[in-house]
Amino acid sequence: MATTKERAYKYVGARVRKMDALERVTGRAAYGADITLPGMLVGKVLRSPHPHARILSIDTTKAEALPGIYAVVTAKDLPPMEKVAGSIGGELTITLIDLRKMTIAHDKALFDGHAVAAVAAVSPEVAERALELIDVKYEVLPPVEDAVEAMKPDAPLLHEDLSTRSLGERAKRPSNVAAYVENSFGDVDKGFAEADLVHETTYDTKMVHQGYLEPTTAVVSAQSDGKLTVWSSTQGTFGVRRTLSQLLDLPQHRINVIPTEIGGGFGGKVYAILEPITAMLSLKANRPVKLVMSRSEVFRATGPGSPMHAVIRTGVKRNGRLTACYAKIILDAGAFPGAPVWGAGAVSFGPYKTDNLKIEGYDVVTNKPRVQAYRAPGGTPIAFAIESHMDEVAEKLGIDPLQFRILNAPGEGDKGTSGQPYNRIGMKEVLRRLSQHPCWTSPAPKGPHRGRGLALGYWPGATLTSSAVVQVLPDGGISLFSGQVDLTGTRTTMAQMVADEMQVPIENVSVRVADTETAPYTDLSAGSRTTYSMGAAVHEACKDALAQLKTHAAQHFKSPKEDVEYANGVFWVRENTEQRVDLQTVAGNSTRLASGPICGYGTVTRLQPAHQFAAHVADVEVDPETGKVTILRYTTFQDVGKAINPTMVEGQMQGGALQGIGWALTEYYDYSKGMMRNPTLLDYRMPTALDIPMIEAVIVEVPASDGPYGARGIGEVPIVPPAGALANAIYRATGRRLHTLPMTPQEVWGAIHSK
Amino acid sequence: MATTKERAYKYVGARVRKMDALERVTGRAAYGADITLPGMLVGKVLRSPHPHARILSIDTTKAEALPGIYAVVTAKDLPPMEKVAGSIGGELTITLIDLRKMTIAHDKALFDGHAVAAVAAVSPEVAERALELIDVKYEVLPPVEDAVEAMKPDAPLLHEDLSTRSLGERAKRPSNVAAYVENSFGDVDKGFAEADLVHETTYDTKMVHQGYLEPTTAVVSAQSDGKLTVWSSTQGTFGVRRTLSQLLDLPQHRINVIPTEIGGGFGGKVYAILEPITAMLSLKANRPVKLVMSRSEVFRATGPGSPMHAVIRTGVKRNGRLTACYAKIILDAGAFPGAPVWGAGAVSFGPYKTDNLKIEGYDVVTNKPRVQAYRAPGGTPIAFAIESHMDEVAEKLGIDPLQFRILNAPGEGDKGTSGQPYNRIGMKEVLRRLSQHPCWTSPAPKGPHRGRGLALGYWPGATLTSSAVVQVLPDGGISLFSGQVDLTGTRTTMAQMVADEMQVPIENVSVRVADTETAPYTDLSAGSRTTYSMGAAVHEACKDALAQLKTHAAQHFKSPKEDVEYANGVFWVRENTEQRVDLQTVAGNSTRLASGPICGYGTVTRLQPAHQFAAHVADVEVDPETGKVTILRYTTFQDVGKAINPTMVEGQMQGGALQGIGWALTEYYDYSKGMMRNPTLLDYRMPTALDIPMIEAVIVEVPASDGPYGARGIGEVPIVPPAGALANAIYRATGRRLHTLPMTPQEVWGAIHSK
Repeated sequence: MATTKERAYKYVGARVRKMDALERVTGRAAYGADITLPGMLVGKVLRSPHPHARILSIDTTKAEALPGIYAVVTAKDLPPMEKVAGSIGGELTITLIDLRKMTIAHDKALFDGHAVAAVAAVSPEVAERALELIDVKYEVLPPVEDAVEAMKPDAPLLHEDLSTRSLGERAKRPSNVAAYVENSFGDVDKGFAEADLVHETTYDTKMVHQGYLEPTTAVVSAQSDGKLTVWSSTQGTFGVRRTLSQLLDLPQHRINVIPTEIGGGFGGKVYAILEPITAMLSLKANRPVKLVMSRSEVFRATGPGSPMHAVIRTGVKRNGRLTACYAKIILDAGAFPGAPVWGAGAVSFGPYKTDNLKIEGYDVVTNKPRVQAYRAPGGTPIAFAIESHMDEVAEKLGIDPLQFRILNAPGEGDKGTSGQPYNRIGMKEVLRRLSQHPCWTSPAPKGPHRGRGLALGYWPGATLTSSAVVQVLPDGGISLFSGQVDLTGTRTTMAQMVADEMQVPIENVSVRVADTETAPYTDLSAGSRTTYSMGAAVHEACKDALAQLKTHAAQHFKSPKEDVEYANGVFWVRENTEQRVDLQTVAGNSTRLASGPICGYGTVTRLQPAHQFAAHVADVEVDPETGKVTILRYTTFQDVGKAINPTMVEGQMQGGALQGIGWALTEYYDYSKGMMRNPTLLDYRMPTALDIPMIEAVIVEVPASDGPYGARGIGEVPIVPPAGALANAIYRATGRRLHTLPMTPQEVWGAIHSK
Repeated sequence: MATTKERAYKYVGARVRKMDALERVTGRAAYGADITLPGMLVGKVLRSPHPHARILSIDTTKAEALPGIYAVVTAKDLPPMEKVAGSIGGELTITLIDLRKMTIAHDKALFDGHAVAAVAAVSPEVAERALELIDVKYEVLPPVEDAVEAMKPDAPLLHEDLSTRSLGERAKRPSNVAAYVENSFGDVDKGFAEADLVHETTYDTKMVHQGYLEPTTAVVSAQSDGKLTVWSSTQGTFGVRRTLSQLLDLPQHRINVIPTEIGGGFGGKVYAILEPITAMLSLKANRPVKLVMSRSEVFRATGPGSPMHAVIRTGVKRNGRLTACYAKIILDAGAFPGAPVWGAGAVSFGPYKTDNLKIEGYDVVTNKPRVQAYRAPGGTPIAFAIESHMDEVAEKLGIDPLQFRILNAPGEGDKGTSGQPYNRIGMKEVLRRLSQHPCWTSPAPKGPHRGRGLALGYWPGATLTSSAVVQVLPDGGISLFSGQVDLTGTRTTMAQMVADEMQVPIENVSVRVADTETAPYTDLSAGSRTTYSMGAAVHEACKDALAQLKTHAAQHFKSPKEDVEYANGVFWVRENTEQRVDLQTVAGNSTRLASGPICGYGTVTRLQPAHQFAAHVADVEVDPETGKVTILRYTTFQDVGKAINPTMVEGQMQGGALQGIGWALTEYYDYSKGMMRNPTLLDYRMPTALDIPMIEAVIVEVPASDGPYGARGIGEVPIVPPAGALANAIYRATGRRLHTLPMTPQEVWGAIHSK
């Protein structure tokens, strides 16, 4: 596929206004909670008050007898499990059997907030009353809330068969370890032996939430014959369709999933968390049912970001060259397997060139909600570890932290963490730009308790399958639709591509996110793949539509199709400029009169990876009295390949950095005996616009090796460097290294005042 | 295109259960009035109380000041008319300028019920109150309610510029004649000169309504930037899109028309009658608006069936051979041009072979609602005339009425009314089957006041453009979607075709009617074209999907695509039966792993016509005391080409016959001084199941020359013969010929007791 074109683009690369902005700011955009259907019921979920308990019995008779109650469901209402197979998800795969158990507790409740039963009622009040009338008998079990604790031989076991199921004969005894993954190339022992310095450090991070604005919501209208219509605020409608098909034993063609607008996902709306239980209620009630989570339920029972424990060891020559890189990464999956072991491993030493690498990853279950992706899943914790570690190494060697990173930066052909050589990448260009930028060349902030920190980030990016349909309407307008959920403004970026490929004003283009019954198969919007992979599909669909238009124009001219030329809305025959016909005429004639409407189709799968690199620089001031960290200046650099819409790219860079800053400084799940103590936005502290300065976003453009325009995915890598950059800045401001996240005022104060 | 195939079909031709039956009978199917949106307002229309009046002024200030009123609109709220161009509709074309004036009265109100203003309010009560507060000053003008009267030089003129605009220099003076159409071949004067008998008769029919169960409804959600989402119970969503685009000066890609379920159309829901006014309200209110017509509004202000005045003259040889056929047909269009002159002319002598034909058609405006199609528009009145006339001719010649028709029946190669030779047709086969059927071979009903009548019917059928998309889902299920509105059960017939083409169980197939943003362009569901034209598109889409599947299977086998064979869900390589792979596996691998999802596309335009012929036989008893006609037995014969689903075909034959019976015996708009006196279902008398016996439907199958399976359209021709058959039966029962419709008890009693 051509990566660049000679023709200058009018819209690709321009700061085009977000086309759905008006709908959103006027409240006309329909989110899940806005869906209203005749006869619709309100669903509510009964959740376990224990982080770990055996369910001895559930008596729903009183609830069922309550007037106004149309359905009460428990795990017993699910079809038999035998047919359930396969797994689902983008970056953090979960087996559908585990998803079934996560949807609604089977024999055990495995985390504080685990769904145990659900009701559908005429009103929220009746539904709440019914929940009170459901009598669940529990045998309370001791919980385990930390992955390292959970690996100990005497730890309470969540799933008796887990280790043997996942690890087979390698599991010597039942444990909470779901998977052990080893990834290596070269010879690390040899590398360490050759090193002048071997350095080892240890890091810990906590569970955090994506903090999307829109609570998870589902509306399902089921018929008694099992036909389902589902309104879902999901990142991937086709995954929801497959999940419902598997869990409810319905064929996929009997399920239509309609994407609503989505108020933020960040990887946290990948799995069908509420849809199965809502569908169970609707099928039983034979009425439409709406289920909207409270914020507390969102915290307790969706899918947060994974906590990590990591040991990093590197060997270096005196000249700064890395000779060996080793990481042991223990990731906490919550109650069911599937922590971001792959993502953390991929990110880890991604920005560093080495001949000898070994990564050991552990996927461990604990009595917490099952994690989901959170932009670049696993990336933020591991980059906090690696970037803190590399700063220490550079300091020990007496090398400037930027020079150390430039020295070890990978380029095209160098091996990435996967062992495969990188195609064209922009790590070196990002560092070159940073090295010349005032955020780095200006003197470090003056005064005591101030410091500057640098950190790098990497994300490989996903590809998968995307498909798009481009239709040219009888009045010459162009309508694009696909099943690709718009999380970040991709309707606008797709319109830019269509306008340039079809060479028409962007006002003539509309973009629709369609349901699973009409959109051709498209994978979820996640893994930084939307603009990259969908852009390629849109590109193909436009080519198809143009070819069809040329066929029609050729009929008009009575000339061979091959001789028809097109530019800027006009067709003509090569070497004959007298005969001309415009796009609108050709399109207008295409319906009843000519050989059919113009309907271009594009589908793309298995593109090459488009690796993404970033670097962040933070200047901070630490208040020694309180430990509070104030960010004075924050600058992000990122190789985006080609910024289709620079304004939106900057928005992603800023938003990702902000989320990483929250993760670094203030956000965490505060657990006590397995119970979350802060499941509100008051107590779970996310940074606001008042907490941080304007984040400067510097766009670097090294074209990707595949896909159109050279664009790379951009949504994930901005969350990777912040914790490392801030930890390094805090070190320079205080002389103290923090090895745990978040770096709250308490922690920073404690570090300052420790001996 | 292949018309028949050697392979036996499993579903095509079978009595498959209607797949959306459950949704409909349980009330879960969403009709227009079921749509509810957040913040939605109620729309109401102020209608002219005069059939003909100049609008001097409209004062809306009091209505606008009423609390709870969000918008008041009049014709002044429409964008300028200069850009409006073209015309719209399937069988009864209307110019968009006329549709604009019909939507909401401009300078004149032209019929009782003509919209003059509209309001959007928080409740129906507030809306009604606002209508009362709108002050319209009228100059009342004399109305003209009959087309023959309207043609007289001193008739009140509806449109000053009409005749000159339509007829150009041929219009010697302004008149209410919108069009004069002459269609002829051979030499009728010579034909009449050669005849042994020349017979002339005159007929009149009245205005009738299609009587669909669901009142016309529209819901529009407009944004302030002009983006429209429209829920419409229309027969053709793409026509609604174009109409709104033209009338509201919006590009088509900014308008999405979503088809709701439709509770009957019969040609009466072709034009956007309510959508433009609802859109005007929504745009002005910046809120969603729902407008639902009352039954009285449906009668007064939608589009009924056209009344007719006709003079029929034929010449025959003593042996019964027709030598010349002449018809003068005056059709009443209501307030704007576009009566079914073409349809009446096409139907007229369609079942009769002649060398000399002349048809003169007049399209005349009157102060009545603008007519729309009503199954085979123009067909029922003209066939009443022709079939009564032919019975009289046969009697004068002393020839049995069936023998007379057999003698003159056309076959393949004979000229139709258009002057073009028929392709393969079934008129002779229909008559042969009828001649052997007990409804005809049994003795005519015994006793006084009883009689048997026979009549023929013809309809050419439309083709236009249809498009379909067939997707094979990852679990092997198959999902079809198109923009073809399902009026009559075509979801099921399309599923039958898909199941047979893809060779899968029909349970694995679903069919969706999609909106204009996702469905590829498809013309309206009308003109008996849906199964014929859409069936061909589905057939193409299946072929495309199968070709794609074979490509994937070839990759699986690592064999050339040309060698891959398929049958009943299994692929194999020719001459190698060991390697086999099933459809589900190929489809499952198509998404992430192989070369993309399976998305078959088919579009068909300009098929050959598939002519439809029918014959009906009625046995009646007439009560000489009251004039009431009781139908004792009713049998319909119809060449359907190929009955895709015999049960549904029979339903169409029975339903069409029943509507024709109502038109023949009891239904009519009762006008007095231009005001409709019976706009309720109590006073406008439609036959019920209690009024008629079981209608026997005899399916005749002479394959059509084009399209798949040999199927012909079936929905319209059943309404053509009933009035003629009943008139002929009443004649045999009473000895009196009625030359006007409806043949109410009063009319029949009057005829019996006239001298």
